[in-house]
Formats: sequence, structure tokens, C-alpha cells
Amino acid sequence: MWLQTGCNITFDVDIPTPFILMLRPRSGLQQWIARDSYILTPSVPVIEFTDNYGNLCQRLIAPVGEFSIYTSADILTTENIDVEFGAPFEEVQNLPNSVLTYLLPSRYCQSDQFVELAQDIVVDAMPGYDQVAVIVAWIQKNIRFNSESPHFQISAIEVNQQREGVCRDLAHLAIALCRGLCIPARIVVGYLHELEPMDFHAWFEAYVGGRWYTFDPTQSKPKGGRVTLAYGRDAADVAIFNQFGPLLLPRNISVSVEWLRHR
Amino acid sequence: MWLQTGCNITFDVDIPTPFILMLRPRSGLQQWIARDSYILTPSVPVIEFTDNYGNLCQRLIAPVGEFSIYTSADILTTENIDVEFGAPFEEVQNLPNSVLTYLLPSRYCQSDQFVELAQDIVVDAMPGYDQVAVIVAWIQKNIRFNSESPHFQISAIEVNQQREGVCRDLAHLAIALCRGLCIPARIVVGYLHELEPMDFHAWFEAYVGGRWYTFDPTQSKPKGGRVTLAYGRDAADVAIFNQFGPLLLPRNISVSVEWLRHR
Amino acid sequence: MWLQTGCNITFDVDIPTPFILMLRPRSGLQQWIARDSYILTPSVPVIEFTDNYGNLCQRLIAPVGEFSIYTSADILTTENIDVEFGAPFEEVQNLPNSVLTYLLPSRYCQSDQFVELAQDIVVDAMPGYDQVAVIVAWIQKNIRFNSESPHFQISAIEVNQQREGVCRDLAHLAIALCRGLCIPARIVVGYLHELEPMDFHAWFEAYVGGRWYTFDPTQSKPKGGRVTLAYGRDAADVAIFNQFGPLLLPRNISVSVEWLRHR
Amino acid sequence: MWLQTGCNITFDVDIPTPFILMLRPRSGLQQWIARDSYILTPSVPVIEFTDNYGNLCQRLIAPVGEFSIYTSADILTTENIDVEFGAPFEEVQNLPNSVLTYLLPSRYCQSDQFVELAQDIVVDAMPGYDQVAVIVAWIQKNIRFNSESPHFQISAIEVNQQREGVCRDLAHLAIALCRGLCIPARIVVGYLHELEPMDFHAWFEAYVGGRWYTFDPTQSKPKGGRVTLAYGRDAADVAIFNQFGPLLLPRNISVSVEWLRHR
Repeated sequence: MWLQTGCNITFDVDIPTPFILMLRPRSGLQQWIARDSYILTPSVPVIEFTDNYGNLCQRLIAPVGEFSIYTSADILTTENIDVEFGAPFEEVQNLPNSVLTYLLPSRYCQSDQFVELAQDIVVDAMPGYDQVAVIVAWIQKNIRFNSESPHFQISAIEVNQQREGVCRDLAHLAIALCRGLCIPARIVVGYLHELEPMDFHAWFEAYVGGRWYTFDPTQSKPKGGRVTLAYGRDAADVAIFNQFGPLLLPRNISVSVEWLRHR
Repeated sequence: MWLQTGCNITFDVDIPTPFILMLRPRSGLQQWIARDSYILTPSVPVIEFTDNYGNLCQRLIAPVGEFSIYTSADILTTENIDVEFGAPFEEVQNLPNSVLTYLLPSRYCQSDQFVELAQDIVVDAMPGYDQVAVIVAWIQKNIRFNSESPHFQISAIEVNQQREGVCRDLAHLAIALCRGLCIPARIVVGYLHELEPMDFHAWFEAYVGGRWYTFDPTQSKPKGGRVTLAYGRDAADVAIFNQFGPLLLPRNISVSVEWLRHR
Repeated sequence: MWLQTGCNITFDVDIPTPFILMLRPRSGLQQWIARDSYILTPSVPVIEFTDNYGNLCQRLIAPVGEFSIYTSADILTTENIDVEFGAPFEEVQNLPNSVLTYLLPSRYCQSDQFVELAQDIVVDAMPGYDQVAVIVAWIQKNIRFNSESPHFQISAIEVNQQREGVCRDLAHLAIALCRGLCIPARIVVGYLHELEPMDFHAWFEAYVGGRWYTFDPTQSKPKGGRVTLAYGRDAADVAIFNQFGPLLLPRNISVSVEWLRHR
Repeated sequence: MWLQTGCNITFDVDIPTPFILMLRPRSGLQQWIARDSYILTPSVPVIEFTDNYGNLCQRLIAPVGEFSIYTSADILTTENIDVEFGAPFEEVQNLPNSVLTYLLPSRYCQSDQFVELAQDIVVDAMPGYDQVAVIVAWIQKNIRFNSESPHFQISAIEVNQQREGVCRDLAHLAIALCRGLCIPARIVVGYLHELEPMDFHAWFEAYVGGRWYTFDPTQSKPKGGRVTLAYGRDAADVAIFNQFGPLLLPRNISVSVEWLRHR
């Protein structure tokens, strides 16, 4: 299906502020970028580079005054995501080298603290895809999804204590639990068609049966219409905007995802 | 300056044919992609990856029948290129690791065969930028620039024998001569504003004084308004389209570069 | 100075256990490996790969029974480390792309939680090297160095609460404080000549004045004689041995570092 | 089987000369380095880096006077190489991204000039492994193997004209022919047990049936006991020593490969 994604972010900048943005989607196995706009107002020099995870990052210095970022893209993506109960657990020794990093604990996914809980949750599940599905179901049952994002990020340990969180938090907890079972898991940030309320979104992927599968604890059913902006170990790696210096919250963020029915 | 670049390429495909294209410019130090369209007709699955030189490559299988590729982009680039007579030769031991590959001979730049000629040409020049400038002047004087591209690629040795060539050939000869002096040199393919006749273009960069400088033997004066599609050791690395299987020439290629005066 | 480093690690393995080891030092700017032995008993197949940080990693499956790893190397390293009071703070916009990852919070260095404390500590120091030196001095004064390593890793937040820690913990706290000031910082694990008691060691590097400088909160004076095994964001990235499956502690670890005075 | 490989190279250096060496084998899927010595006399600073193909390279400046390089290693490698008649041709669209570079023409393997000859040679062979085997047999029948290495490198076109060549030349011709059929092929330089006369050696690998297979036109039968020093597109990528400046031939090279029967 063809989607038109877009965002508009405005900052009021007091002092020149270095930014790293991750707002340009890359064409990959599951998405093709047919059109892409990326407008900065005022226009400033930008350097784009590829990070360790293969994401495109844009570096710039936001100038003093109103600074806005506008992006828009037409993207071909899949209408459905693959669901594959029975896809087997991949033994660590068989994982590709590039996947190993997604087994390690990270800033918001302290997987070393979740081994026991993970084993309790999946006790009867078949190793692999089914375990991940059981983890997602457990989160949906036990952790309240709260669409209102706080300014302050919490880690999987805190999500588990507070029993509620935003999309990112639910993904972090799921990732920590998967890694606790030696299942590689990574966060994905991007766009989701028909997300309510519309915003940037975060979900996760788990590596079983020789490939990555998509999971989203915030959605009651498997759902396609996804556009990936970035992959990483957790939200520390994939901040849609990372700024350096005094905290600077956007005055406004608007996000849109439209189905291009007739393209 | 803002440029709008575009191309339209049509093939008549007899059997499904794998292609690797390099038609998506990347934002980098010298150019910023503010808008980008990339349309395939008919639409087919594409995988995009980054090659060893940091270029974006698009892999696809062209289906039987008429197959066309249309790209368009709005790009902020520099109106002038840096000219820096006196920029010194960089000793091999001081070159960054990533630059060393551009010292080696390659398919179309047999630099190992050009050591003597290079030394003869630059005999009185100051080591570094001035040597490259002398090489470019020598090519402009001795090799006739022929804008008509043959289907068949020739190497620097043949360019030197035939005493004429297209933009790519002149770049290859210049690169081979630079490397013969231990000056790293790489080919660039992309767009040039006001190129006559308009087409894709090839020029080269040489690494002196701690950075890459742009040179173009086909232009009588230093000229900006350039958009890079890909870097590489020579044309073998940076084919704008690389197809596998029976030779398939495009039925039509049109290229355009417009100055967006009022953007 | 020439050092001979070595380690001997023995495990009693109950079930075949996948391991990732980081026990092969790489030749780099500051060390040259002239001799290197790496013996596994029993001998098992190993795959070596380079991780995202440039470290050599060895993958293998430890077989049931006694499994031991023995390494030994002759390494040329520097007798002193560079000390450069006055080396300036590097503005984020001037950092190389590859350094940016060391500004982000990580599993054990939750730098986002240390901005205020860091600013309090360095209040009068000149931005750059001097700030890092003040952080190191503050840690030496406020956090008790405990050479006995617990099995359980704690993060910078916990180190700061408990006011004591092993070498790794002190490095984590220092790294979190540096990143809180937008100074890139990374952990280093390896060997240190004359460490008391002898063991593997962890310290850190901070990026100021355009390069990485070595700091070690466990040592009262700047001290060379260091051999690097791995770099990373924190201990999660650079586990000397990472095992997957049921916890398996080494029955024995011995580490040695000898000065090859007459080499 | 365990092999002990070694080399000893001596240069008489007139002016300080930058070198890039590829004399340190890496542990990989098919070999494990259990012991490794690398001695430079006199001892000079060395930087080791990984090139685009994953090889370890050592950079140094050879000082004036006698300069010698001595290496020695104990390596576990396979006694036999895999032979797999019937392994199918891999369609270009199914090749991993990282393999695509081995389809392109290169300095010494002008595969674009060998499409017809390759098709003639393999006319009746099953696409894939069998085609490569037929190419190897054709070379063994038509190109005389000459173990005496000239100082001057020739390319596949010249090898085909001269109808004789050293190991490297035979590999280049085979690689050019394979690529002419869209079979990825790469050169390997390293050591071969029982090579007569003993020296560094070059052979090639072709990618069929989803993996790389080893082929060696200089050997009448498939033969293991190989140690890889470097992979690349052709000899331009994998010079065991690459020097910059006036030509400097080694005064002496000795190479040894011993079977460690009792290790």
C-alpha cells in the first residue's frame, strides 16, 4: 500500500543548538521511498551520515529564532505484517554477527534483569516466535498503554514497576524480555497508518526463524501500514531528534499518515 | 544555489533483468537533498543498500516490456568549487585509512602504468594541488574532449593512445596520472549545471592538503553547480546503471538540471 | 615499552554454551601486537568478527567439561599517557560522525540523569580536558575504589548512590558525567602494567581537543603501560566474555602483565 | 590440520618509504589463528586497519637501511576443500549486497571483455559450480603455469594472449571468466601447504550455491591446507606489500609452511 507520511516540528531556539535528526526514511526490504521532501526553515547546512545501525542521520545547528522541520514522503509499504507462529528460536551460535548486538542489555532495556520474569511468562510456549507472541500478550494484559508521552524517558525496569507506559515503553519492556530469553530484539521508530492519536510511533522486531518479525504491543491485532525511520537497540539509539545543550522542547509537532489510495 | 536535477530512462526489456542503479543522490558535506522523487514504471520491488564507497544503490529486476525510471530532486549545492593553489601534497603516511584505496590502480585507471608520464607532466609544479592542476591542463591541451559517448568503455591507457574521449575518459586519465604521483584520486558521477549538451557527467576529485578537491578536465574554468550521485575508484564502481544479463541499452535517456532561482 | 600480557580462564561447562570473547588485542595507534597466542582447550571452531566499535570478537561454543582459554601477547605500548590540560571542549557540531555515539546514554552510563551533577562538579573548570580531570578528581575523592569485583554489574546511578565500586563502576560514573557535559566518553577494557591486584582492568577515554585522551579514576597519577582489548559505550558492549544460557562463572581467572625489559 | 606458516622479507631502503602490508591472517570461518608473531627489524610504529574487504592491513614507514619483516603463525585450517558439483548458479537478484562488488570488472580482471569467451568455454556445463570447474579445466589445458613471478603484473587480457602466467595470473583469468558469466569471483592470497616451489600463493573463490567455494588452477586436484592472508577483487586490492615511492624490490623473500603433525 502507498502511504504519504509527513511531519512538521517547530522549535523556538534561544541559543544555536546542535541537532541530530532521524527523519529521512531509507528504502529497504519492506519499504520503498518514491518521493521524499525534507525542508528546513530557515535553510541551514546539514550533513547526513549513516550510523552504526544503518540509519540516515541529519546533523545541523538550529539557529536562534523559530526553526522548523517539515518532511513528507510517498512510500510503498506492506499492508500486512508477517505472522509466523512456529518460527523457531535461533540458537545464538547461528545468529549473523550483525544481529548479536541486539542480544545485549542497553540503556532502556536492562535485559540482564529480566531473565527470570521472561522465563516465567513464556513457560509453556514453543521457543521462538510463539514466545515473543506470549510476551506481547502478557504486556497487553499487564501494562496499561498510555498514549500521552511524558518528557521524561523511563526504562524497562520502571515500566514494569509503574505498569503503564507509552508505545516506546511497552516496546522497551518487550525487548528486555526477549533478550532475557536470548532472542535478539530491536526497537523501530517510524509511522503507523491509522494510529490513534496520530504521532510518531515505536514498536519492535524480534529475530526468530532466521529473520526479523514485527511486533507491536500497542495494537490488538497484527497491523501493517508501517514506515520505518530508524532501528536501534533502544530509544537512546533512535531519538527522532537529539539535541545537545539546554533542553529545548518543540513548540509544536504534527504528524500525518495518509493512504494514497489511487497512486 | 538550488538546482533541480532530473532524469528519465526507458528500457525495452526482453527478459527479466537484474539492475543496480545509482540514481539517488545522498546528502553530504557539499549537497543537501531537500526533495527527491524516484518513480519506477511499472512499480517493482527495490532494495536499497550502501556500497563500500558510501553510495546508495538500488537493486531491482526490470520486468519484460517497457520499463522506465524517473528521478527528480531539489538540491542545495555550492555555486563555486574551492580552488586552492598551494595546497600541499599529503604524504602517504598521513592519509586517512579510508583514502588509501584511491591510491591503487583500478579497472580503468591503470595508475601503475602512468608513473613516468605523470612525473614528466608535473616536472616543475609544486607537489599537491598545483600538480593536479597541471595534469588537468595537460589533458585539456592533449586529449580532445568528445561529448558523444560510445557504448564501449575504454581505459586510461587507451584514452592516452586515442587522444580523445568523453568526460569519463578524461577523468580516468587524470585519475591514473594523479595516482601515479601517489595523489589519491576518485571519480565522481552526477549532474553539472549548464553542461553542454546536457547529460549525466563524470569528473574527479583529488586528495591534497588534507581534503578532497574537485577537478573537471572538460570545463575550461572551475565551475560549481554540481550534484554527486556516486563516488568510486573509476567507472566500474559507479555505473549509473549496471545490468546483468544480455546487453540492454536504454531506448531513451534524458537528463535535466535547472537552477531554482527563486527557491 | 614492551609488555607481555596473558590470561588463563577456566570454565566447568554443564551444557554446550555459546560464548563471545574479546580477548585478542588489535594493533592500533597506541599499541602494536608483535606476538599473540590464543589457545582453546579443547580446541573448538571459532569465528572471529569485528563489531560495530572495531573490536575483534571470537564466537565459539564451549563444550561440556573443562574448557579453558589461554592467551599471551607481546605488545609495544606507550610508557606514559598524554596529559593535556587546556585541551578545549569540542563543540558537538565539530565532532566526527563516528564519535557521536559516545555522547548517548547507555546501559550502565545513564548520562541523561547526570547533567546537573556534572555541571555542579566542573563549575569552575575550563571546558574540555580540565573538566574531565575535575570529574576524575571528584570520583577519587567521593567514590571508594573497591578492587573486589562482584558478580553483579551496577550502573552509574547505583555507583553514585553506593559511593563505591570496582574499576568498571568508577569508569561508568565518569563516562556518565562527561556525557552529561556533551563530552564524548567511552570505556576501555584491557590490561594495566603494575595493577594491584593484577586482573583485567577498565578505564575510560574522553574526546577533547580533537582526539581521545586516557583517564583512569583508579590510579592516583597518569599511568601508561596499557593494553586495550576493546572499546565501547560501556561494559555491556565490551564484556571480556559474554556467555548465553545459564550463568556460568569461571572457576579460575588469572591475568598477568610483565614488562619485557630486554626486548 | 595445523599449519605453521612463516615469511621473512628483507628490503634495502634508500629513502623512508611508506608501506602497506597484508601479512597478518585473520581468524575466520575456515581458519583459526592460535599463535601469531609479527616482528619488524628495526622496530617502527605501525597502524593496523581493516580495509573495505575485511582484511587486516599494516601501515608503516620503512626506515633507511636494512628493513626486515618476519611473521610466523600456527593456524588450524581444513585439510580438504569443499567440492560441490551441482551447486547451482546464484541469480544476481539473490546475491547478498556484499557480494555484488565481486561481479564488477577490476584492474586485472576486465570481465567485460570476457563474456563471449566465457560462454564458449562453459557451453555445455550446468550453470554454477560446474561452469567454474570447466573454466578451471580450460585454463589448466590452455594456459601454461609458470612458477617464476615477473616483477611486472599483467592483466587477464594479457594472460589470455600470452598463454602463460604465474598463480596470480591464472586466478585473474579465471575470475574474469567467472564474472563474465555473472558468477561472483574474488582473489585470495595466502599460503598453500606443499606448494612447489614454496612461496606466497594466489588462488580464487567463486560464489555459487549460496556460498564461496575455493578453486586453484595451479593444482591438478582439489587441495586444502590453505591459509588466507587477504581477499579482494584482484591483485590490486591484495598486494602482500604495497609500497609508495621509488620501486623497491625485496632483497630476499622466504616463505615456509609446515604441517604441525603433533599439535
